[in-house]
Order: sequence, then structure tokens, then C-alpha cells
Amino acid sequence: MATRVSTAPPRGMRDILPSEVELRDAATQQILSVYRGFGFRRIETPALESLKLLTGSEGGENEKLIFKVLKRGEDLEAARRGGSELAEHGLRFDLTVPLARYYAENHARLPDPLKAVQIGPVWRAERPQKGRFRQFTQCDIDVLGVASGLAEVELILATSEALDRLGLTDLTVRINDRRILGLIAQHCGFAEEQQGGFFITFDKLDKLGPEGVLAELREAGYRKAAIERFERLLPTLQKRELSLEALPAALGMGAARLPEAFESLAWIIRTAGGEMPPGARVQFDPTLVRGMGYYTGTIFEMASPAFPSSIAAGGRYDRMVGRLLGLDVPEAVASARRIALLVDAGGDLAAALAAARGLRAKGDLISLEIRRKNVGRQLDDFVTHGFWGYATGEAAGQVTVKALTGKGGRG
Amino acid sequence: MATRVSTAPPRGMRDILPSEVELRDAATQQILSVYRGFGFRRIETPALESLKLLTGSEGGENEKLIFKVLKRGEDLEAARRGGSELAEHGLRFDLTVPLARYYAENHARLPDPLKAVQIGPVWRAERPQKGRFRQFTQCDIDVLGVASGLAEVELILATSEALDRLGLTDLTVRINDRRILGLIAQHCGFAEEQQGGFFITFDKLDKLGPEGVLAELREAGYRKAAIERFERLLPTLQKRELSLEALPAALGMGAARLPEAFESLAWIIRTAGGEMPPGARVQFDPTLVRGMGYYTGTIFEMASPAFPSSIAAGGRYDRMVGRLLGLDVPEAVASARRIALLVDAGGDLAAALAAARGLRAKGDLISLEIRRKNVGRQLDDFVTHGFWGYATGEAAGQVTVKALTGKGGRG
Repeated sequence: MATRVSTAPPRGMRDILPSEVELRDAATQQILSVYRGFGFRRIETPALESLKLLTGSEGGENEKLIFKVLKRGEDLEAARRGGSELAEHGLRFDLTVPLARYYAENHARLPDPLKAVQIGPVWRAERPQKGRFRQFTQCDIDVLGVASGLAEVELILATSEALDRLGLTDLTVRINDRRILGLIAQHCGFAEEQQGGFFITFDKLDKLGPEGVLAELREAGYRKAAIERFERLLPTLQKRELSLEALPAALGMGAARLPEAFESLAWIIRTAGGEMPPGARVQFDPTLVRGMGYYTGTIFEMASPAFPSSIAAGGRYDRMVGRLLGLDVPEAVASARRIALLVDAGGDLAAALAAARGLRAKGDLISLEIRRKNVGRQLDDFVTHGFWGYATGEAAGQVTVKALTGKGGRG
Repeated sequence: MATRVSTAPPRGMRDILPSEVELRDAATQQILSVYRGFGFRRIETPALESLKLLTGSEGGENEKLIFKVLKRGEDLEAARRGGSELAEHGLRFDLTVPLARYYAENHARLPDPLKAVQIGPVWRAERPQKGRFRQFTQCDIDVLGVASGLAEVELILATSEALDRLGLTDLTVRINDRRILGLIAQHCGFAEEQQGGFFITFDKLDKLGPEGVLAELREAGYRKAAIERFERLLPTLQKRELSLEALPAALGMGAARLPEAFESLAWIIRTAGGEMPPGARVQFDPTLVRGMGYYTGTIFEMASPAFPSSIAAGGRYDRMVGRLLGLDVPEAVASARRIALLVDAGGDLAAALAAARGLRAKGDLISLEIRRKNVGRQLDDFVTHGFWGYATGEAAGQVTVKALTGKGGRG
């Protein structure tokens, strides 16, 4: 008697088939090679972290989604008896919380400044739904210890180049500064302590439109005069062609006493803008808010016409850290040709191995395959699994490579 | 008041510093590129699997070391009330158990035969000790669905080439067949049901020496005649120059009625041997046992003089699966030059970015670094972190690259 165990992966998690692994690997290599070219270093932390660290972070909603790891042996028995916590560690839900710990622990042995790339799995116990998985890969890029705008410029340039290499052309980098948002809120007359709430609603402009945002502000009970001033300013902020230089006048500021945020943002836009890959641009956007509360300076978001939502986003947060979050990589580049070298089961396999070696030396990926009775069906299978072609004639020392041209047909 | 959280990684786990990540990444790429050249495909499974699967496997001792993941929400409450299992899933302790599930779940969408490469983390709650970690990377290579010795030959050739590319030269592949071990046991007169125990002791030959093995067999109470016959045979088995062809005579077999195991092993040795990288060899070794009970045919182990223990090992197990376990990769290849381009904090950063682009185009890794007051110390830091050199003069448009020649000295 045997107990049947389901062969499905755990709920909300998935098996990755070879062709998808290959796309991912190629994309990962492209990304890493670009960032490495800019002096970034890849780092790695364990999948598990202490729950104290994970739940004491700014992870917000994500903290509720932690997969906790059961204590073991005597620790577990003691916890059960004493009614204390059954878990001490959990699977990381992002790469930022572990980075903070990693930096604190290892900074003496790390380059200063540290330009770090992380690519790795994170886990969140979300309700499974289309396009959301309980294990997924994050790419996190951070610059620690650079006070100057150079951190932003390098993040933007390296990321633009990485996306360009992945075939995401016509890239737009929208950029703003939290401090400029603060000046806008101040100009309208929102009190300092109201700014957080105001930003959260302002951030919904794309989704709700101007009327929706204003209605939500009214409902929330902000001062009427502040909302009205914001209403009058909004059309100006939404103008595509609004330049950073024109904003101070719209906020009633004299050009003489401009706050530092204007100067630093202008420098970043000018410097990064001059180095972008062909077809890509940096654009000031005073309506860009970025939800995360921890940003303190520059914020930016990257989009390409090929994708409905933003591809990458980030900003500067406390203690001189530049950061880029959530780089989703959808596509990859062409790879070597995959070729099946057909051999007879009883044939001269030594000759076949030598032939395979010869083909491999040309850079192709060679899979020795025993010829089946139904060769037509076998060739169809090769097409299904992404083979470029097949080769025969190894026994006679005259290998011929033919392209597979799709189901049923072969070249 | 703030609670202090330790910045150390969880017990038995570790942070990986940039230089080690780079070595690993380079080695991983080398390994993958060789196996891909032989037609292998990388696959990936989730980190978590159901405990039913993990504990119902042949994982032996490893099953006791599973990190279990606490149930959540109502499931956890129900489990606590009902006193049932607190966990339903666990972190995988190897890559073989998940592969079996993956293959069962996805075989209709997978190439047949499947030549699979897996590289990924596994977790074991071992007592932390030197050189043993609770999270570590495994490399698992499997061929599923190939009955012929071609599976063994390709595993051996691809692995030898991968190790050769990693700089592990002078490789010896020791090879044997479980069925030949069975014939040895039979020749000595060990009963069928005693063979498992006999093999476990025989496997200790390296550690205990012939006298130790014989003593352990005597202690275990095997038939005296069988132990004596084994004692007489042992010097022959241990001869380095013993060929597979000479063994049947030593076992008192006529050449006419040789079991199939001899023929298939001879073919594998001859075929793989003829294709090995320069300096590498395949050697028959009738004293090779390999502990794992599930092997049913060919078994092999690879070693290089540079390492005290075996580097890779594997064998054929039930249902026509070839397998390679535990490829530990210790070293990697040379990479591009890492160069620090020094710029003044107040200098022309746009010119610096352009200079960096020029250097990067030559294939170097360029890190823009703000010049510190104590440049000597800064250059020392670059040496510490593996920089090859530094560059200056970007402002004047005349970039000079200089090699760093070690602590304090620079070229």
C-alpha cells in the first residue's frame, strides 16, 4: 500500500520549466553584467532572518505575510509548554530588510561606498491569485554611503542600460524629489503633519484622475482653502512640458532663494539625461509621489511603452542610501542554437560523441538523442522544446545540421 | 527606547561578501555553460515542499533536519486546538526529492529524455560546525529516461569538462557497478540479504584499511568462510592496475558467460575514456561502493589531487535515471579588471561619467569614487576590495589608468 502524495508544488508556488529558466538566467546575466560594469557588487544573504528583525522593520503589510519557521526539538517543546512563540525565524519577504542587517553586520569588510546588487527569491504568504506567487524573484539595487547625486545618476544610468539591453527601448524615467512635494504641500497650505496623508491621496492621480483626488481630499476633511489652491495648481503640475525651472514661479517663489532640492534635482536630470541610452529620456514629473513613506529625497520611476505599469522604481532614503526597487524582468535575449544530434541506439556512440564535440566547439548546444522509431514525432517534440535544429550522419563522419521549421515541417 | 536586534545572520547561516559571490557566480556560469553545451537544461523548483513529500522520501537522516514552516491563520489555530501537526510544508533538504515531484508533475511538458541541471540552496537544521552550514548550495545533475550507458558517458564527460574549466586538472573518475559488487559478495559467499551490510562495511576501506574492514566484518558475525574468501580477494581488488577484464578470472568466472554488467561498464569506460579532457582519466575501481542504497547500476566518484575528498559523485538508480550528486565548486576563473575612477566631489561629474563609459566599453568594471582627503588610505581600501587599479584625469579629458600593486604601493 502506498500513500499518494500530490505532485503539485505548494499552493501559490510554481515549478519553472527549462525554457523559462533559460530566459531568466539570460536576463539575470545581462542585468548583472551592466551593473557590474558600473562598479556594483552582488551580495547575498540567507533566506531566513530572525522574526525580531523581520517584524521590526518598515515592511508594513508585508510583515503580516511572513512564512514562519517552526522551532525545533527542546525549543519547540518549551514553547508549547510555556505558550510562547512557536517560531523564531521567518523567510525574508523582501531584500531590503536583510540588506540593512547585512550592512550593519559586515560594513567593516565591505567597500565604502557600497553599491550593491541583490537578485534572489523572497516569500510572501499572499492569497494566491493570477500573477501573484508566494515565492518570486526580486532584484534590488542599493547605493549606501554616497551623499551626492552621483548615486541617483548611476542608478538611473545603469538601470536604463540594463533595461535597454533587455530590449526595453523608448524608456522614460520620471523623476521628482520628496522635498519638492513638501514645498507643493506647503504652498497649498497643508499643515506639516497632514503631508503624509495628502501624498497618499495625491499618489492616486493616475488611478482616480484630478476630480477623484480632489473628492478624496475633501472627504478626508482637509482645509477647504488648501484643497482649492491645490486644485488651481494641479493643471500646471500635470503639464507634460512643465520644466523643473518653471515650477518655482508656479509656487510663487523668487528664483533667487530656491531651496537646495531644486538645484540637486536639476543637476541629476541634466547629468543623467546627457548619458542615457539612445531613445531613453529623463523627465521631471511633480505628480510622481511613490507610496513608500521612507523616501526622503529623489524618487523616480521607469516605464516603457511595451509595458502597462512601471518596470523599475526607487528613490533616496535616510542615511544617504540610494535605492531601486522591484525591477521586473520580462524578456531575454537570443541564445545559442539548440541542436539534437540523432544517433541510432546500436550505432557508433563514440563517433557520435566526437561529432557532438565538434558541433559544441562552434558554440551550439548539442543534445545527443537516441533516434526513435517515429522520427517525425521525435522532431516535432524537438520543436516543442525549443530546439533550433537537428543533426545526422555522425556515423559516416559527415554531420549535416538542419533547421527545424515548426510542427511537422523541417528544413 | 529601541530594542536591539542582533545583526548576525541566523545561527549556522551566513552572509556572502561580494568577492565570494563573484567567484560563485563565475563558477556557476562555467558549470551551466558546459552542461548546456551537452544539451542539459536547467530547471527550478520552489524552496518549500509538502512535508508529506519530504518525509516520505529516501532522504534518510536528512529528513530529521527539515526546517518546518508554521501553518497560518485558522489552520494554525485549528492545529493548536486539535493538537495536530503545526506545519504542513518544509524547506527542501536536497534537490533530488523535489526533482522526482517536478518530473511527475510536469513530464508531459518536459523533453524526453530529460537531462536536468539544478543549482540552488537547500536547508538542513544541522548542529552548526566548521564547514557545515544550515543553508548551502547544491548542484544536482540528472538524466531521466535514458536506459543506455550514454547517460553515464555524458554525465562523466560534461562533469569532467566543467571541472576542467574550473581549473581542476588531473582528474580521476573512479567507476564501478553495483551489480559487480553483488558478484563479488556472491563469490565470497555472503548471502543475498547480507549484501547491504557487507557493502556498508566494505565502503569504509579508505578509512579503516583492509584489517579494519575485516575486523568489522568478523565482529558483525558474518560467516567465517565468506570473510576469509574476501580477505584472499582483497589484495587483488586493491591493485591499482587491475583492469575490468581481469576481474572475472579473479572471481573464478569463465570469460564465456560474463554477466551484462561487465560489458556495459567496459563500454562506458572505453567510450568516456576516449573523450576525456587532457590529463583526465576513467579508472575501474572494484572497491568503490558509494554509500547510498538506491544505486542500482554504475557508480562513480571524481577526485583531483588538489582536493582531499571527492569533488563529485553519482550513479544510476532505479527507473533509468542517471544522477550526479554534490558537485562542490571551490574556485573560479579570472574576471574583468575592477577600476576605481577617482573624481573630486565638486568636479565635473558629467565628464567623469563620460570617461567611465569609455573605460567600461573596453570591458572593465568601472566604479566612480569620490576622491577622499586621504587618498593613500582610499587606494589601500581599493586593494582590500579587489580593485585592479584606479584612474584619474577625467576632468582634463585625459584618463590615466594605473595598477594598484598592493597595500601602500601603487604602480
